[in-house]
Amino acid sequence: MCELLGMSANVPTDICFSFTGLMQRGGNTGPHKDGWGIVFYHGRGYREFKDPDPGAQSQVAQLVRKYPIKSDIVISHIRQANSGRVAIENTHPFSRELWGRHWSFAHNGQVKAVKKWPLKFYQPIGSTDSEHAFCWLLDQVRARYPKPPASRTELSRCIAGLCAQLQPLGVFNMLLTDSSYLFAYADTDLAWITRKAPFGQASLKDADLSIDFCEETTAGDVVTVVATRPLTTDEEWHQLRHGQMIVFQNGKAVKPRGELTGP
Amino acid sequence: MCELLGMSANVPTDICFSFTGLMQRGGNTGPHKDGWGIVFYHGRGYREFKDPDPGAQSQVAQLVRKYPIKSDIVISHIRQANSGRVAIENTHPFSRELWGRHWSFAHNGQVKAVKKWPLKFYQPIGSTDSEHAFCWLLDQVRARYPKPPASRTELSRCIAGLCAQLQPLGVFNMLLTDSSYLFAYADTDLAWITRKAPFGQASLKDADLSIDFCEETTAGDVVTVVATRPLTTDEEWHQLRHGQMIVFQNGKAVKPRGELTGP
Repeated sequence: MCELLGMSANVPTDICFSFTGLMQRGGNTGPHKDGWGIVFYHGRGYREFKDPDPGAQSQVAQLVRKYPIKSDIVISHIRQANSGRVAIENTHPFSRELWGRHWSFAHNGQVKAVKKWPLKFYQPIGSTDSEHAFCWLLDQVRARYPKPPASRTELSRCIAGLCAQLQPLGVFNMLLTDSSYLFAYADTDLAWITRKAPFGQASLKDADLSIDFCEETTAGDVVTVVATRPLTTDEEWHQLRHGQMIVFQNGKAVKPRGELTGP
Repeated sequence: MCELLGMSANVPTDICFSFTGLMQRGGNTGPHKDGWGIVFYHGRGYREFKDPDPGAQSQVAQLVRKYPIKSDIVISHIRQANSGRVAIENTHPFSRELWGRHWSFAHNGQVKAVKKWPLKFYQPIGSTDSEHAFCWLLDQVRARYPKPPASRTELSRCIAGLCAQLQPLGVFNMLLTDSSYLFAYADTDLAWITRKAPFGQASLKDADLSIDFCEETTAGDVVTVVATRPLTTDEEWHQLRHGQMIVFQNGKAVKPRGELTGP
């Protein structure tokens, strides 16, 4: 299994604190030593960092921990290889362009049988079932919507339906973004928290590090963090239910629970 | 104008030396202060670093200079904005997937009228003429070859022909790779050098730094570097001619001069 981390914020926000916790699970407090990756969105633009080295030891991860890259949306992933060898082309997040938007995807779980599903527009570069699932998912969206659908609800329903088709193949927890929305779909494990005023303190589970968000934020900031397992000990995280998708935009859940549970 | 840097090598090789020279032109010895980017290929996989900050001051560029990422193919670019604002989505290299390969592209020059040319499969994410030209080029390759062509010569001829269509729009020097070949097309400025045994010394034009390649290489290494302008003072670089394309693979020119000058 792998670990996922996502963020959606209403003002460009750095993810140094959460990323520090996640990276500890990459070889120190967790067994996820087979590479890691992160993508930061700045409007329509993005910056991606990947490394096949364990997150806990990676020089690139050190840079990302220390250098506060402020962004609107983040997706990160640390890998424990189960399908596809340890190699940079098998490192999440995977990305493709659709409608002039840069889409990124990270997956936790296994859906091996998806590799038999035919693909049309998008082809995998590496050998993971995860990248194949992503290519299939975007293929389906593209075939149904050669141009972006008129409403967010329509797009969200389409994606939730596709996730519900993938999930019975095994285990399928995922984070997906089109640079505007963060789609979080849970099969077994995904938790989220929205931080907003009044801000409090938080302490990482996986490292001896606390933060006082009061000092790091302004009153109007709204930031949601999504992770495979809660990253902090002193905050209340919400678990996504099996088969549930939540859509976040500008730091908030815009598709509340219950609304997007399959086709 | 911008500056391009490319590398093709027969063994994974770091580009720290050349990159150090290039980054000096990003705000110190040159005016190219509007961001920079680099992509490293490891087989079919890739790692990309981008920064809208000037290369000479960028923290990410410092990491790339000091951390020897060994790779088979590199494309890098420092930008002096002329089309499209300074923003991460307008920072080269641009990339797309075709045939399950990750293609990267960087451009020096201006081809503004290309923005009127229709696109089908690939759409730009940012607002540069360069990304539009890249989308058009890959669109054409994809339309002509839904599957990879049988021979390298066929693919190379196709790409040289497309470059020859773009070049009359303005200035069009470019580096392009499909993770196996490095395609270098010159309009006004592009120079290259192949380093192999017996290796000698080289001194950077733009920084007080010399290197003895004997100490950094083994006898069988073959490495080609391509750049807008020669990066060293004590080596003999070859200028590409106007309208000429050279294709490099495993460090060597596989399509020699003269063979690929247009459709």
